[in-house]
Amino acid sequence: MTVRVTVWNEFRHERSDDAVRAIYPDGIHAAIAAGLVEHGGFEVRSATLDEPDHGLTAAALAETEVLTWWGHVAHDDVEDEVVDRIHARVLDGMGLVVLHSGHFSKIFRRLMGTSCDLKWREDGRRERIWVVDPSHPIAEGLDESFVLAEEEMYGEHFDIPPPDELVFVSWFEGGEVFRSGCTFRRGRGRIFYFRPGHETYPTYHHPLVGRVIANAVRWAGEPSGVAPTFGRREPLEPLS
Amino acid sequence: MTVRVTVWNEFRHERSDDAVRAIYPDGIHAAIAAGLVEHGGFEVRSATLDEPDHGLTAAALAETEVLTWWGHVAHDDVEDEVVDRIHARVLDGMGLVVLHSGHFSKIFRRLMGTSCDLKWREDGRRERIWVVDPSHPIAEGLDESFVLAEEEMYGEHFDIPPPDELVFVSWFEGGEVFRSGCTFRRGRGRIFYFRPGHETYPTYHHPLVGRVIANAVRWAGEPSGVAPTFGRREPLEPLS
Amino acid sequence: MTVRVTVWNEFRHERSDDAVRAIYPDGIHAAIAAGLVEHGGFEVRSATLDEPDHGLTAAALAETEVLTWWGHVAHDDVEDEVVDRIHARVLDGMGLVVLHSGHFSKIFRRLMGTSCDLKWREDGRRERIWVVDPSHPIAEGLDESFVLAEEEMYGEHFDIPPPDELVFVSWFEGGEVFRSGCTFRRGRGRIFYFRPGHETYPTYHHPLVGRVIANAVRWAGEPSGVAPTFGRREPLEPLS
Amino acid sequence: MTVRVTVWNEFRHERSDDAVRAIYPDGIHAAIAAGLVEHGGFEVRSATLDEPDHGLTAAALAETEVLTWWGHVAHDDVEDEVVDRIHARVLDGMGLVVLHSGHFSKIFRRLMGTSCDLKWREDGRRERIWVVDPSHPIAEGLDESFVLAEEEMYGEHFDIPPPDELVFVSWFEGGEVFRSGCTFRRGRGRIFYFRPGHETYPTYHHPLVGRVIANAVRWAGEPSGVAPTFGRREPLEPLS
Repeated sequence: MTVRVTVWNEFRHERSDDAVRAIYPDGIHAAIAAGLVEHGGFEVRSATLDEPDHGLTAAALAETEVLTWWGHVAHDDVEDEVVDRIHARVLDGMGLVVLHSGHFSKIFRRLMGTSCDLKWREDGRRERIWVVDPSHPIAEGLDESFVLAEEEMYGEHFDIPPPDELVFVSWFEGGEVFRSGCTFRRGRGRIFYFRPGHETYPTYHHPLVGRVIANAVRWAGEPSGVAPTFGRREPLEPLS
Repeated sequence: MTVRVTVWNEFRHERSDDAVRAIYPDGIHAAIAAGLVEHGGFEVRSATLDEPDHGLTAAALAETEVLTWWGHVAHDDVEDEVVDRIHARVLDGMGLVVLHSGHFSKIFRRLMGTSCDLKWREDGRRERIWVVDPSHPIAEGLDESFVLAEEEMYGEHFDIPPPDELVFVSWFEGGEVFRSGCTFRRGRGRIFYFRPGHETYPTYHHPLVGRVIANAVRWAGEPSGVAPTFGRREPLEPLS
Repeated sequence: MTVRVTVWNEFRHERSDDAVRAIYPDGIHAAIAAGLVEHGGFEVRSATLDEPDHGLTAAALAETEVLTWWGHVAHDDVEDEVVDRIHARVLDGMGLVVLHSGHFSKIFRRLMGTSCDLKWREDGRRERIWVVDPSHPIAEGLDESFVLAEEEMYGEHFDIPPPDELVFVSWFEGGEVFRSGCTFRRGRGRIFYFRPGHETYPTYHHPLVGRVIANAVRWAGEPSGVAPTFGRREPLEPLS
Repeated sequence: MTVRVTVWNEFRHERSDDAVRAIYPDGIHAAIAAGLVEHGGFEVRSATLDEPDHGLTAAALAETEVLTWWGHVAHDDVEDEVVDRIHARVLDGMGLVVLHSGHFSKIFRRLMGTSCDLKWREDGRRERIWVVDPSHPIAEGLDESFVLAEEEMYGEHFDIPPPDELVFVSWFEGGEVFRSGCTFRRGRGRIFYFRPGHETYPTYHHPLVGRVIANAVRWAGEPSGVAPTFGRREPLEPLS
């Protein structure tokens, strides 16, 4: 069963900053897409902020089973109308995988209802990612923990609703911890937030990061249950 | 320990509709406030839509530990600026008890991130409310189930995030069920949604409904933990 | 991907009670197995109480990816040693689907840690099963609710831990509700409890019941994440 | 409102090991009890393994609203009959606060249904405890994180059911993380597991540890809801 994925990227750092371009010459989306293709089972397209409609027309979203989201410096440039459209599609069953600084995106904050704020430090130190739910398909194929040699630190408190499932917790050299892999169900849609991925580090070339994203897209793209309906209803049982 | 409560009411039906006024001559807020006063331990004020700032100035909210919310026909008349203010106060620790048709209020939808839609039928038939979490303080003093002789039906699917705790499930004569008592934590704030309370029935005069609301306000008004801080942080541990 | 399932049945009623045998001439397990075969993607064997080791030798369990469990009058006849074996396999990743009166089985009570008690009435009246999590794969292919014309009533309070996910809630003619589809994760194993299935009604011949069980077995049989290890460990980071 | 607490301690290390006795001359239970007394609002008694019935007769438990539990080397010496008694009392509404190596106690494993295993290292290094649920009353009065200068390490995976609420996550110098403050509801009882407290470190003299335990006992001792009943029931509604 093939999952149709749209890999969305802000795609600004890579064009304006040489250091970022050196790591992601074709954009972060290209690295993420390559990881998905390598794992197989996905039909991958990408979309970026500066395309018309940010590449997310109603038609494009209608054909998208899972959307992955990376943004950082230009969250405010995402049109509210497009955010409304994505929001409606998630409630209607589209999966959403939000990556790293996407925690502050309009769509993630809209779905969470909280500030989604956190502590951070761009220091390029070690992150250790621990699996705390070994039953979860998103952890499939990993070891009990893995290391990213260089990453930005994100620290608690992370102002999100209590996640439905907590899959990963991160350890940082500076003494911080972070709930770095969280699932949420909203409407018929499944959402996964995954912490790593600062633009100045080669995180999206790491094979285990690619594995997590592939697992998450597969999980978020599983066929969901029924389409609920709403509004006034006649009784199903005879009233006395 | 006294909890400072603001009972908020749209207060439109009671002024425009004789049948509603007959049941709630001083407004739904007066009935809810009377129930709280009777249980004791609360300092109660009320506020309504047509007051300046809907009665919810920054100063009023700053002194409010728990806000209860009833609205129905005029959700759109609530100013976005006031909604922003309530939202910030909930994340900062104010409790929120959302009643009945308040499921469609701007503040509840903002906090939930979903449509909050449901099925309904205004038929004045029996509702049976079952306790499904007997460990919960909101169920304190109840029996295993209780009956409202006349209520509006609300039926699943109720499009909310999975509640952190499910306290009540309702049974309706027409064959429907509903998750009618749900808790959510958002930021430092605790939220309780309680289903019953249609304006054409004397629900808020029912002693057990009063008990649930008093329990819920007490629960939502418990002192919460720490005030989280956000932003860039120096390491707590020496970096190697 | 084929899931290897063992359908376990107490298989006593069907041999001692003509009314039950009339509905399930080859045993409840045969009806459940037939439903799985019809949906496809499963390699199905069955096992029953009166076989040696109840058909659940270490070798049989090692080859079982998901075990379904139906028992009623003879829970105490299940050997503790076999229960220990099943328990270990669940923690090690085997899925478990517990059906109807299996709520009182040794293995379910061992995994839940609670009494698993409930209210009941054998009256052959209507049960309406409502989907309350439309994002869940176990609800895939259903309508928003479906009816069983004749079933035993189970009513709240159902003394289980708060389920990780609540998929179904049942409505009964007598005024009761029940959390009738619940997921739990324990160790690496996924557990689903599904309420319907009294031996005197043709529940397991109902196509939607078959659908739910097939969905549940598929969900419980998904590859799970990592195999955790325990015990004394050297530090991963240099200690200061 | 005064909560009646029984502080239970294995009380073996303190009598056999000089280093432990130097830190806890009157036993770990005395230090925990002193912390509770200091916070006020508790009626505290203690009980230890080598008393008759381990100090936990039916009468003693009947008068106990919250039981705290510390054990380590002698879990197997706790009589199964006493464990049955505690288990029944928890389901009936008694709160339970399980401390540190109590994770392997019979009563905790019985209530959890899992192995409760974990990784560990007795190295006396720093533990940083982070609040991840700032809305929780158990975190009241703390800072966002606090440090224990010397503790035993406990590392993930911690084989427990997904906690109902995750209040604390610990960071350790050696690169590990741990879900160190977890709530669970079972029956009418509320359970809190709190990680710190190795016998060779002065953890229970730390004022913030005392604060957490006092908060937890207060939380676990809140009046709970209804007493559920079980068994055969006549219909509440007329059957058609």
